Amino acid sequence: MSQTSASEAAEWAVPPLPADIVPRRIAYAPEEGLSRSFSGAVAAFRAGTDTPTAFLERCLTAMVQHEPSVRAFVRHDLAAARAAAAAATLRWAAGTPLSPIDGMPVAIKDMIETADFPTEMNSPIYQGWHSRRDAAAVLALRQAGAVVLGKTVTTEFAVGNSGPTRNPYDTARTPGGSSSGSAAAVGAGMVSLALGTQTQASTIRPAGYCGAWGFKPSHDALNTGGVTPLALSQDHLGIIAASRADAWAGAMAIAAGVGGNAPHPGLQGPVEAPAPRRPEVLVRLDMQGWAETPPDSRAAFESALARIATAGVRILDRHADTEVAALEAELADANDYSYDILAWEARWPLRTYVAGHGTAMVGGRIQHLLRHAAAMDAAAYERALNRRAELRVKVEALRARADGFLALSSSGPAIRDHAFTGSRSYPLPWTMVAAPAFSMPLLASEELPLGLQLCGFREHDASLCAIAGWIEDLLTAPESQEI
Amino acid sequence: MSQTSASEAAEWAVPPLPADIVPRRIAYAPEEGLSRSFSGAVAAFRAGTDTPTAFLERCLTAMVQHEPSVRAFVRHDLAAARAAAAAATLRWAAGTPLSPIDGMPVAIKDMIETADFPTEMNSPIYQGWHSRRDAAAVLALRQAGAVVLGKTVTTEFAVGNSGPTRNPYDTARTPGGSSSGSAAAVGAGMVSLALGTQTQASTIRPAGYCGAWGFKPSHDALNTGGVTPLALSQDHLGIIAASRADAWAGAMAIAAGVGGNAPHPGLQGPVEAPAPRRPEVLVRLDMQGWAETPPDSRAAFESALARIATAGVRILDRHADTEVAALEAELADANDYSYDILAWEARWPLRTYVAGHGTAMVGGRIQHLLRHAAAMDAAAYERALNRRAELRVKVEALRARADGFLALSSSGPAIRDHAFTGSRSYPLPWTMVAAPAFSMPLLASEELPLGLQLCGFREHDASLCAIAGWIEDLLTAPESQEI
Repeated sequence: MSQTSASEAAEWAVPPLPADIVPRRIAYAPEEGLSRSFSGAVAAFRAGTDTPTAFLERCLTAMVQHEPSVRAFVRHDLAAARAAAAAATLRWAAGTPLSPIDGMPVAIKDMIETADFPTEMNSPIYQGWHSRRDAAAVLALRQAGAVVLGKTVTTEFAVGNSGPTRNPYDTARTPGGSSSGSAAAVGAGMVSLALGTQTQASTIRPAGYCGAWGFKPSHDALNTGGVTPLALSQDHLGIIAASRADAWAGAMAIAAGVGGNAPHPGLQGPVEAPAPRRPEVLVRLDMQGWAETPPDSRAAFESALARIATAGVRILDRHADTEVAALEAELADANDYSYDILAWEARWPLRTYVAGHGTAMVGGRIQHLLRHAAAMDAAAYERALNRRAELRVKVEALRARADGFLALSSSGPAIRDHAFTGSRSYPLPWTMVAAPAFSMPLLASEELPLGLQLCGFREHDASLCAIAGWIEDLLTAPESQEI
Repeated sequence: MSQTSASEAAEWAVPPLPADIVPRRIAYAPEEGLSRSFSGAVAAFRAGTDTPTAFLERCLTAMVQHEPSVRAFVRHDLAAARAAAAAATLRWAAGTPLSPIDGMPVAIKDMIETADFPTEMNSPIYQGWHSRRDAAAVLALRQAGAVVLGKTVTTEFAVGNSGPTRNPYDTARTPGGSSSGSAAAVGAGMVSLALGTQTQASTIRPAGYCGAWGFKPSHDALNTGGVTPLALSQDHLGIIAASRADAWAGAMAIAAGVGGNAPHPGLQGPVEAPAPRRPEVLVRLDMQGWAETPPDSRAAFESALARIATAGVRILDRHADTEVAALEAELADANDYSYDILAWEARWPLRTYVAGHGTAMVGGRIQHLLRHAAAMDAAAYERALNRRAELRVKVEALRARADGFLALSSSGPAIRDHAFTGSRSYPLPWTMVAAPAFSMPLLASEELPLGLQLCGFREHDASLCAIAGWIEDLLTAPESQEI
């Protein structure tokens, strides 16, 4: 059953638009986004011409400007953030930063435990709930010097009702979900990095909608301890950041501090983003999303592919390559069998919320998931796992012939909706593949952000990041000048 | 470094003996233990000559008798338990029990989340903490009709300071840990089954010390959602029960309700314990524990092996078999490399407790683990994982030639100590092997319980349970009569 069916959409509660929200529309162009890269300021920190304190104040200015209409945060603590930034400022001045992200303003999706803030998961069940500990990734970010500004809006338990967050470029549109506030906060320049999660589309989709970088690492490569589980075999920690450098440095700081989900040793690679590297061969994937994609967004994707091809990269696609055609065929009903996996694995914790607090305390989308699981049996789950395994085999079959895969991050720019956070058709496949994916804020459609998704092979996150750098350099160069 | 070194032992805080605790010693004989099997009463429930309500009252009588000196429980709710038992009584009377464990009195280790009771983990950090949900296994037990009597004492975060629980057969002795209260409650007949956990020795050791059955299933075969993690690649849900039938039926109820840790489909096998099956070949393992084992316990083990051999089972050992010798060699320093794995993986959550609440809020043993991890690097962790992988290979090498492995569950009966819960030398190896292990309450030493440990091959839990049944029948038959 498709998660985007009208029958289900009808069940999603529409959150009330805050009465005092400021409607606004800002034209987006990739080279002129609102996001604020921390890595871009590090040279100035070293030179003493800028400081983490000044950087944080610029973020807070953006927060004053944008938060009234964007509503990215559930809670924040400016005083604690300023104190942490001041400490980082002293370390940079002394030439002893804790890490490349020492002083970086970050925000934490409210599905992820924090010792200082409650973790409420956009559910009435968890109002005011304190876990009394930091999630593994939050602990690692703090120990690397990151400045935790606050908690960001999530959809209910990362899968249910939407929150009040609006798209920073058009408050009539969704920021995407489930990491709604994390993507909006980064997209609006309030923080340089925010933690999200991805079990279906929850990092790549909102990052693409909000003009931010999204990075979903290989499954288990970043420790998810203290992240409320949804579907264990597909849950990923997601990184949403203002730049490729910020995304990579943040992810590596987490891996350095707490590793992956044991026994995974954790994300491997250089401490700072690897140098851009030109790929030889990339696979174009249309997935289920192409049919949903409007002409203007299709044109933006085709144009990017054309520039990449012109720069000498061979592009394989379903029409000319039988292995790619086989992979696309496997993806044709990915939304359906992935929903079986999600529903079955999410029986816990979702059932305990209903058992302990009543059906009325969860949204219609979660009730739908529970009904779907109740209609399944173990054999249906096994069938879905087998389909996923076949998908992974078909991806691996291309490892020897291709350097990565290109698709859009979403079926067009952010939709004009507040209850539905958008189609998962484009981000979902690489969640199931358990391999790395980046959403690159390099395209625009209808003067709104449109993410270009670069997908890779499992455990080859660093090489994929290098390819992302080359594509960024190429697509941000003047049309006339090809690299 | 050995976890049992004097330097470390000196760091363990000795919990105060409750002033009003009742000192006592009860002579133990396997056939006359205090434990109370629920499965043994099911026929009477069907016949209408017994009821879950009457069964619970017998448990509560045992609680009145033993709890003042045993101190197994942190919290309990007798009224809620009686109401749940009454509902089960009606279902049995109507011939519509929810499962074979409908009405079974159970207790939950206080490392495992419950929606009704706080989860305090024997730490001042978590006093009064509510997770607002049931752990996956607790949800499944309730949905199968189990009667949750209360929460049982754990050592601090399942690895630190001991609690007040005493051994039901000698209050001068430890019940073992970390599932101290769960083993004592089952051993004393207060409940038929209790949930525990095992990351090192925490289910097999206390079950053996307290005259209860212990079952540590294959890794990931039972869902650990809502169990506070310690070392992810070694954390297991553990079952402590009054009989083989109770242990198996309880484990299968959990698997039926919430499966394993996705994508593991969950423990496979019949709903009720498989019929006893005679093995052809068993491997005798001395492990590191033999050197620690006193003569009387060695004699009890040798005598059991002799009866098993007399019944026609071929016994392989280190002296006569080169593959067994190679496995024993791999086990010679298992305590050391397993401690590296534990310390490294436990960095989270242990570090966040100290970071958020201060070093003084955790016990010396946890401080020791954190210091050990701080002195390690990723390469040391990889080396330990490689040793564990070699151990698993050497176990698998015997799969074609043997049906299982026999060892003691502990280095003798419960030690006369309250701060140290006993050596982990015997239970630890099968935690690392990630394969199933049972502690069978079939031996005695110094008139105290002595567990006989039966270890198997990964994902072959049901066949191991069948072998355990045959060994139980053999060793509980009169000496004269051999099967």
